[in-house]
Amino acid sequence: MEKTCTVMLPLTMNSSEKPQTVCIFGTGDFGRSLGFKMFQCGYSVIFGSRNSRMSSLLHSGAEVFSYSEAAQKSDIIFIAIHREHYEFLRELTEDLNGKILVDVSNNPKINQYPESNAEYLAQLVQGAYVVKAFNTISAWALQSGALDASRQVFVCGNDSKAKQRVMDIVCALGLTPLDRGSLKAATEIENYPLQLFPMWRFPFYLSAALCLFFFIYCVVRDIIYPYVIENKDSTFRLAVSIPNRVFPITALTLLALVYLPGVIAAILQLYQGTKYRRFPDWLDHWMLCRKQLGLVALGFAFLHAIYTLVIPIRYYVRWRMRNTTLTKVITKEDDPFFTSTAWHSDSYLSVGILGFFLFVLLGITSLPSVSNMMNWREFRFIQSKLGYLTLILCTAHALLYGGKRFLSPSILRWYLPSAYVLALIIPCTVLVIKFILIMPCINNPLKRIRRGWERDSKSSESALNGKSDI
Amino acid sequence: MEKTCTVMLPLTMNSSEKPQTVCIFGTGDFGRSLGFKMFQCGYSVIFGSRNSRMSSLLHSGAEVFSYSEAAQKSDIIFIAIHREHYEFLRELTEDLNGKILVDVSNNPKINQYPESNAEYLAQLVQGAYVVKAFNTISAWALQSGALDASRQVFVCGNDSKAKQRVMDIVCALGLTPLDRGSLKAATEIENYPLQLFPMWRFPFYLSAALCLFFFIYCVVRDIIYPYVIENKDSTFRLAVSIPNRVFPITALTLLALVYLPGVIAAILQLYQGTKYRRFPDWLDHWMLCRKQLGLVALGFAFLHAIYTLVIPIRYYVRWRMRNTTLTKVITKEDDPFFTSTAWHSDSYLSVGILGFFLFVLLGITSLPSVSNMMNWREFRFIQSKLGYLTLILCTAHALLYGGKRFLSPSILRWYLPSAYVLALIIPCTVLVIKFILIMPCINNPLKRIRRGWERDSKSSESALNGKSDI
Amino acid sequence: MEKTCTVMLPLTMNSSEKPQTVCIFGTGDFGRSLGFKMFQCGYSVIFGSRNSRMSSLLHSGAEVFSYSEAAQKSDIIFIAIHREHYEFLRELTEDLNGKILVDVSNNPKINQYPESNAEYLAQLVQGAYVVKAFNTISAWALQSGALDASRQVFVCGNDSKAKQRVMDIVCALGLTPLDRGSLKAATEIENYPLQLFPMWRFPFYLSAALCLFFFIYCVVRDIIYPYVIENKDSTFRLAVSIPNRVFPITALTLLALVYLPGVIAAILQLYQGTKYRRFPDWLDHWMLCRKQLGLVALGFAFLHAIYTLVIPIRYYVRWRMRNTTLTKVITKEDDPFFTSTAWHSDSYLSVGILGFFLFVLLGITSLPSVSNMMNWREFRFIQSKLGYLTLILCTAHALLYGGKRFLSPSILRWYLPSAYVLALIIPCTVLVIKFILIMPCINNPLKRIRRGWERDSKSSESALNGKSDI
Repeated sequence: MEKTCTVMLPLTMNSSEKPQTVCIFGTGDFGRSLGFKMFQCGYSVIFGSRNSRMSSLLHSGAEVFSYSEAAQKSDIIFIAIHREHYEFLRELTEDLNGKILVDVSNNPKINQYPESNAEYLAQLVQGAYVVKAFNTISAWALQSGALDASRQVFVCGNDSKAKQRVMDIVCALGLTPLDRGSLKAATEIENYPLQLFPMWRFPFYLSAALCLFFFIYCVVRDIIYPYVIENKDSTFRLAVSIPNRVFPITALTLLALVYLPGVIAAILQLYQGTKYRRFPDWLDHWMLCRKQLGLVALGFAFLHAIYTLVIPIRYYVRWRMRNTTLTKVITKEDDPFFTSTAWHSDSYLSVGILGFFLFVLLGITSLPSVSNMMNWREFRFIQSKLGYLTLILCTAHALLYGGKRFLSPSILRWYLPSAYVLALIIPCTVLVIKFILIMPCINNPLKRIRRGWERDSKSSESALNGKSDI
Repeated sequence: MEKTCTVMLPLTMNSSEKPQTVCIFGTGDFGRSLGFKMFQCGYSVIFGSRNSRMSSLLHSGAEVFSYSEAAQKSDIIFIAIHREHYEFLRELTEDLNGKILVDVSNNPKINQYPESNAEYLAQLVQGAYVVKAFNTISAWALQSGALDASRQVFVCGNDSKAKQRVMDIVCALGLTPLDRGSLKAATEIENYPLQLFPMWRFPFYLSAALCLFFFIYCVVRDIIYPYVIENKDSTFRLAVSIPNRVFPITALTLLALVYLPGVIAAILQLYQGTKYRRFPDWLDHWMLCRKQLGLVALGFAFLHAIYTLVIPIRYYVRWRMRNTTLTKVITKEDDPFFTSTAWHSDSYLSVGILGFFLFVLLGITSLPSVSNMMNWREFRFIQSKLGYLTLILCTAHALLYGGKRFLSPSILRWYLPSAYVLALIIPCTVLVIKFILIMPCINNPLKRIRRGWERDSKSSESALNGKSDI
Repeated sequence: MEKTCTVMLPLTMNSSEKPQTVCIFGTGDFGRSLGFKMFQCGYSVIFGSRNSRMSSLLHSGAEVFSYSEAAQKSDIIFIAIHREHYEFLRELTEDLNGKILVDVSNNPKINQYPESNAEYLAQLVQGAYVVKAFNTISAWALQSGALDASRQVFVCGNDSKAKQRVMDIVCALGLTPLDRGSLKAATEIENYPLQLFPMWRFPFYLSAALCLFFFIYCVVRDIIYPYVIENKDSTFRLAVSIPNRVFPITALTLLALVYLPGVIAAILQLYQGTKYRRFPDWLDHWMLCRKQLGLVALGFAFLHAIYTLVIPIRYYVRWRMRNTTLTKVITKEDDPFFTSTAWHSDSYLSVGILGFFLFVLLGITSLPSVSNMMNWREFRFIQSKLGYLTLILCTAHALLYGGKRFLSPSILRWYLPSAYVLALIIPCTVLVIKFILIMPCINNPLKRIRRGWERDSKSSESALNGKSDI
């Protein structure tokens, strides 16, 4: 501190320069880390505690007082104490009157208590201005500065001045405050750090279910069937062949499921003749997790790509190629070149690669920092136009792969068609409906509805309104 | 609302806590969405409308008044009305005097009107403080909270206090305000959401042209020539072989074009003897879209990588391999192993892989969130040093691929050299000039020029200036 | 300017609207660029200079005065002059009294002077409020608007009002201010733009050393040994085979080294019986660069993947396959299919692909913009649970690759085991220790320690403290 005295001296004349004092109740891990961070950023920090014995662990310069004393020394107090122990604050009501109390607590479970910790605190200490903040930041992050996860600090509170004071501190610590409104939002803020990928849950379970279904389906067709009929041991197919059949099917189905809700929504709007009626909840939820569905689909497509590329390295494939050659040598059979087969093989590979490339492009543009650089027109162009092109290419890839064999009855085993035939149902349906929807006779009324037009009685005036207001 | 009454009661004593009232003119989609969002964030929202009939669609608690009444109730008014209908605001001049008017409008086309909507509004209602904002945010984004695209709200206006008020609201809604200066900037802000990848246009058209040229070139050499000369049907090459020749050529040419403007700029500076003369416009524009050029090149390189990796899966390749073996069996020819051929094949693959790896690395570091973590020294190191290394490796990959065949006349077909010979022209030129430029006798004057030295008359003093000022 | 007069006229009645005047000392590159940028954003800019001759290069409307005159016209002055020339400011002490001086300077080397430039400036001109800012932004970035690298402007200063003024200007220019506290932080801020990937240095050197060691090891075993023993020229293996052995080994070792410090830290905490003792410095540093280590490992894994996928394209591999077939033809040997070999080949490929997929997923989630979207629970889930799963899969991939050959003595060459045996040492150690650590009898005390419990004398009360405070 001495080192900077010369610099600081002339500044003490400026009344604005007395360092701000903040108070922290509780000397646990988080309290100490927060105190040290604020001390580093130029605040004067005092702690309130039951006993002052813990001071050895605090940063140099930190002072520890009784709760009551500490509360009197600062007008902003961080409550770094578990909710179960809030009770004692009731006794300090007088000392805390008019003060800003910052609730930084988290609960171990979601919705553990009827009201949020911050609202509970506000009820306990009625004269204080309670602000919820900092609960999304971990003690370790504050200490190490390794803020790899979110730097965002959600803030809420009923008093806007108190909230502003806390947000200023958040800024001063190099974090990003995010105002979430009144104390009502505290429940949401307290639940936030307890969440584990809520938006990914539906896509994850859906894809797991699809994977499992297609896996069993393929096992029955490709392993059990040959074993029963020909007594052939094909179990080794479990490692690469079957996954490489399940993954592309799951990817294509999921990709189609990304575009299905949009198509359903359009049909609903056409049927209802208005855009002002809410969609059913399941459709709303589905539409909100389309991005996650698409990214899971991309993951499966990526796996499919690698599983396909390792094919020529596999022992089985090498053995089969060698075997084919040997057979031809022995039977002295001719091995003519079929241009049509070459066309077929090359074109489904080519279409698949282009589809995968566009898919990766879609994935990259959905990175937060990339999509944040785009305006809505660009975002819609990428996610809608390029997205449909991807779906078309990937569906074409599957159709071409099937080729002529597609509808031949010899492909049925125990009346089960090949798995990729199932995979094509949803994508083809989506594409056919979309194709119908973009035909002018259907698209024009849809466009009008989306601009605010309504088919019902009041339609003429609504249209007028829809036109004049944005 | 009842639930929080206990919490809110003590706060009503605090005068700062009356919720702020905002007014929205227009009850269209955007007006309603904005109103609901602001309501959620604790504002008291009233609507101004021609008639109050639409209130059924508004959020609960929203009140609708006539324009004049609504204007009197708030000092900040969002004009969520299309520009064509602004005229009626002229009649409200008195009510709007001294108020903050927020223009949120967009036009359907770029530069549709001589002046921006916000400037037009400011002319109409001379006594009000007009601020342009929110036009880049869509109604759907406000409603659903799914702010996948930009959260940035560009704000401009002539009155800084009015602007600050609007920016506070932007912050309160969890969006990021970006001050773009005075109302003059409104034209730019209004054009922004109408743009469709303006920086990508030149790289896109350039690469499309290159692709097309090389595609036709390769079709002539590899499909038409064999057909005419040997009457051989090689059309199946259109699907994989030709693209896999066109893509790497385009990628390499584009990558070289990323570094060409820097080399041209250096030559210009050396020639002019000063860095204080502006570059020609085409060079400036070229330099600004180098990043986009590089990313398009990376896309083609990625396609080339996958097209190359699927080679052994192709029917044609498998047939040819089988055929070679069968021929050797029949002719009982020996099949010796040539170490030099192995060296050649392995080294061009290895150099290509390393080049591709560095290229991907360059791509990753150009992601906004990654480049934002770097300082200028690190950014220049990556984009310049690593970039040139990538160019060297990729050029070496192409040179090695050609190998000895390179200049043999047998490779000419109809006097056309192989396509990759053309691909090497620009990269080699760039590398040779760059190599000359980094030789000390050339590099030292260049460095001096870039530090501010000038060859002309006033040089001595300028140099002094360049040294003393940053 | 004339164009906007009509708009601006009514605003001049508002006293808040006189554009703010800022002063810049120095008309070098950075001074001019900054001036032009501020002029664009609505500031009135005046320059202070020794002579007014340079004005031709300044933007239109800029005025140049003597230092003393310029200083009197504004209360905020940017010092765009090299530190060596600060001396003359001593003479202006009176003019600068009470003004805000913004130090934008950088030094050519780290820690060139005992104190930072900003602190030196504060000592020279004692009556002024010195703020450090803008040194991380380049002149070119200000001019071109191409702010590809960081938009963050670190700000520090002892006077909070002066700092706020500067941060407002930073915001107005569309940049992001980051308050780093008092002027003590200036040294760090001045060193920042001179750094070249400080966090990557250790991972880079470590991986380079590992690479080199394993490269030499493999050269001895795979090239020198066959040459000495069998006089066989395998030098062509240098290009692909050896790198494809070195890269996966390095990747796996680095990945294990990402998880080793966590394991060591747990053992230390168990041994010391407390979490309140600091780790040794090397461990702290190691833990902080785990992310970088992991990303370098991912780079090597990516290279390994591509090197593996090109295997079937290589001349050597094709020749060998042809040769095997020819040999079988000549010897008329049978070529039976071994299901166990197929299982072995397919399973190590499959496990490797899944491991690589998870590795890429880890890499994507460590992108700043992606990790910023996650809360701590999600971040820990990804980096710890998924991370260990990746390590397990990759280790299993290496173990399966080795297969039965693993411990056969015939694999030793000059008593050297195969390289991948070495590669397995660290990963297996980490996994074994981790497995022991998660057994309940060890994990429970560890959990208690991490919650704040201490084994020592004061343990009972500390535990209580640890429980009541966050």
